[in-house]
Amino acid sequence: MADDVRMRGFSRRTDVEQAQRLVDERVSTLDGELIDLMQATGRVLARAVTSPVNVPAFRRSAMDGYAVIAEETFGATTHDPRRFEIHGESLPAKPAASDVGPGVCIRIMTGAPVPDSADAVVPVEFTELDDGRVLVREPVTPGKNVGAVGEDITTGDELFRPGRRLKPQDLGVLSSIGLGRFFVVQQPKVSLIVTGQELLPPGSKPHGYSIVDSNTPMLKGLVERDGGQLLTGPIVRDDRAALKEALQVCSLETDVVLVSGGSSVGVEDHAPSIIAELGELPIHGVAMRPASPAGIGFLGPKPVFLLPGNPVSCLCAYDFFAGRAIRQLAGLHAGWPHVRVRMPLARKISSVLGRTDYARVRIEQGRVVPLAIRGAAILSSTTRAHGFVIVPKDAEGLAEGADAEVHLY
Amino acid sequence: MADDVRMRGFSRRTDVEQAQRLVDERVSTLDGELIDLMQATGRVLARAVTSPVNVPAFRRSAMDGYAVIAEETFGATTHDPRRFEIHGESLPAKPAASDVGPGVCIRIMTGAPVPDSADAVVPVEFTELDDGRVLVREPVTPGKNVGAVGEDITTGDELFRPGRRLKPQDLGVLSSIGLGRFFVVQQPKVSLIVTGQELLPPGSKPHGYSIVDSNTPMLKGLVERDGGQLLTGPIVRDDRAALKEALQVCSLETDVVLVSGGSSVGVEDHAPSIIAELGELPIHGVAMRPASPAGIGFLGPKPVFLLPGNPVSCLCAYDFFAGRAIRQLAGLHAGWPHVRVRMPLARKISSVLGRTDYARVRIEQGRVVPLAIRGAAILSSTTRAHGFVIVPKDAEGLAEGADAEVHLY
Repeated sequence: MADDVRMRGFSRRTDVEQAQRLVDERVSTLDGELIDLMQATGRVLARAVTSPVNVPAFRRSAMDGYAVIAEETFGATTHDPRRFEIHGESLPAKPAASDVGPGVCIRIMTGAPVPDSADAVVPVEFTELDDGRVLVREPVTPGKNVGAVGEDITTGDELFRPGRRLKPQDLGVLSSIGLGRFFVVQQPKVSLIVTGQELLPPGSKPHGYSIVDSNTPMLKGLVERDGGQLLTGPIVRDDRAALKEALQVCSLETDVVLVSGGSSVGVEDHAPSIIAELGELPIHGVAMRPASPAGIGFLGPKPVFLLPGNPVSCLCAYDFFAGRAIRQLAGLHAGWPHVRVRMPLARKISSVLGRTDYARVRIEQGRVVPLAIRGAAILSSTTRAHGFVIVPKDAEGLAEGADAEVHLY
Repeated sequence: MADDVRMRGFSRRTDVEQAQRLVDERVSTLDGELIDLMQATGRVLARAVTSPVNVPAFRRSAMDGYAVIAEETFGATTHDPRRFEIHGESLPAKPAASDVGPGVCIRIMTGAPVPDSADAVVPVEFTELDDGRVLVREPVTPGKNVGAVGEDITTGDELFRPGRRLKPQDLGVLSSIGLGRFFVVQQPKVSLIVTGQELLPPGSKPHGYSIVDSNTPMLKGLVERDGGQLLTGPIVRDDRAALKEALQVCSLETDVVLVSGGSSVGVEDHAPSIIAELGELPIHGVAMRPASPAGIGFLGPKPVFLLPGNPVSCLCAYDFFAGRAIRQLAGLHAGWPHVRVRMPLARKISSVLGRTDYARVRIEQGRVVPLAIRGAAILSSTTRAHGFVIVPKDAEGLAEGADAEVHLY
């Protein structure tokens, strides 16, 4: 039967900033692992990449045209063209067999090797053919349309620093220098323990007083956004021994443990006391709304995040603390991952001094409209919202007309 | 041997806007397919979703505390508390067996069903225990801390419209209404044919006059960004028959065909003539820099994009045309997918009237710095750049100090 002392609420709530500092102090980037080039989009480099080669490795033509000695074209005009014999052709990866010289050119394609004897390429647009010879109607200067060795990338160039999240074009560059595999930061493995008597697994139909777990599918997307991989287990019901075992296994096998639900000080909230017993629970209760029952503990070195079962609180606690840890483990920037915009508030947002608020808002006609927040259980408010505004703890709220920074979902 | 007439350049170049309009006219959203909830992050809804249920389906408590008849608490103060007997407990999914009444309450947890006989929940913070009874020190009004049936979602609510790209919290909402599977737009299947004598497959070391294909790994990331799936084949060398067969197979088996390289009017550029022969090639040559040799054709209903082999041109032609088509097939917004910011230009960007330019830029100290662009072959310029600025065709350039819109990579 319930112990009412355990329903008394939190004796002390930690500041959001203090809780974030604890995460930053206790979490660091995971080790690297080798990955194949074609699987690496979005991954984070574990080591700097220095080019082992010049790109291009040879002088290449930047145009379709004719390789020449530039001096031979000086003074050329439409009325007084210079005339060249064509002594061969240079195609990509198929250099010409012969050389250019006085009155002699080589036909050349974009990207093809420029013969050593040539110092410029006359674009085809500056020429015409006349009885098998080329008439050059405009002069070119030495070096014109010839890409130098290493003009794109030079041997020894540091191309990327550790921590770079690889963009599509980065993979193009890595491919061009011949790197088929390289070291990226391991993806954090994140386990999720969902607790709650009343919960049915995702994909079930809600019935009677049972409701369907909405936190698992939501957290999967959030963890992936932050560079991690979510491993889900079965829902743990009101069974202290089962929860204890799940926490032990998850903290051994994964880098981060998330516990959804059962984080408060209510009668069925076993998770906090088990974490404190098996490891440490330095933070339980945060001065924020929603998500005030959130907690942060450690089982050995592994962080454990207590996420309230209410879906909006779960989203909020994840975003403030767990996502921050996962991003750091993944080698990403710890700060907010959302795109942010600044716009004036259409209505004031009320808060209280000493508490950080997470207010869902819509953007309408260039103004920020706070949603009427009827509670942390209203997940649909986060799908109607375009994003959220954080009201810091040293403000009693944000005034109508004040500029607010919106984190876009 | 080369036919010099085919090296004469393009007779006519299409406007960028005209080419984009052609894409918009000829491409439409793919059909839907059923997907499992847990696989659906980032996918696009093919049909509207209307809730078949109320969430919650029962009156639930928003607090840990005591369910009461609100009137029974009126006038309560610390000095004159109201006293209640506790006749049972309501836990999540385990309603109390008995009812509340005058002088009688039910202990209740957050999320647990509120008995029909109660109309409010007194938070535990307003109470204390005295010899097995509850002393209520503050009154509550009827409805207080009781979540109504359907307060989050009401049966028949249209929750999402078709075309919604599913966010993590959207999946939470879909789970909570009991949808384990639903219709999303099929992911566009995109095939890529890479042509070029000089190319080695990604993962090779460059050697001699051979260079490593950098477009395949880059395009894979871009196609995935736009909601598609890239299928890659072997590199097709200078073999007209092999290229023809590849184009036929790819246009039958996939929704979009990309051809990298061999798009110009040079001696080895077979792709344009094969596409014109097998289908149509309404656009070949676009008034833009880089990527002017880009082309858009159709084999039956399937769009084929000629992407120049030079990596920056390839990126640019993909982003202007192919990405736009893939996003529309995927049911996404056709426009640019990049986050955009406006900032003043640190230096002018030159262009010419009638041509659209794609200028790579860095952002330094709140100003937009154009990168010295030495040519479309310099892929590393796109990794040094933070994004790009589009100079429209009706401008001769953008002046120093003018506000430029940067598309962030």
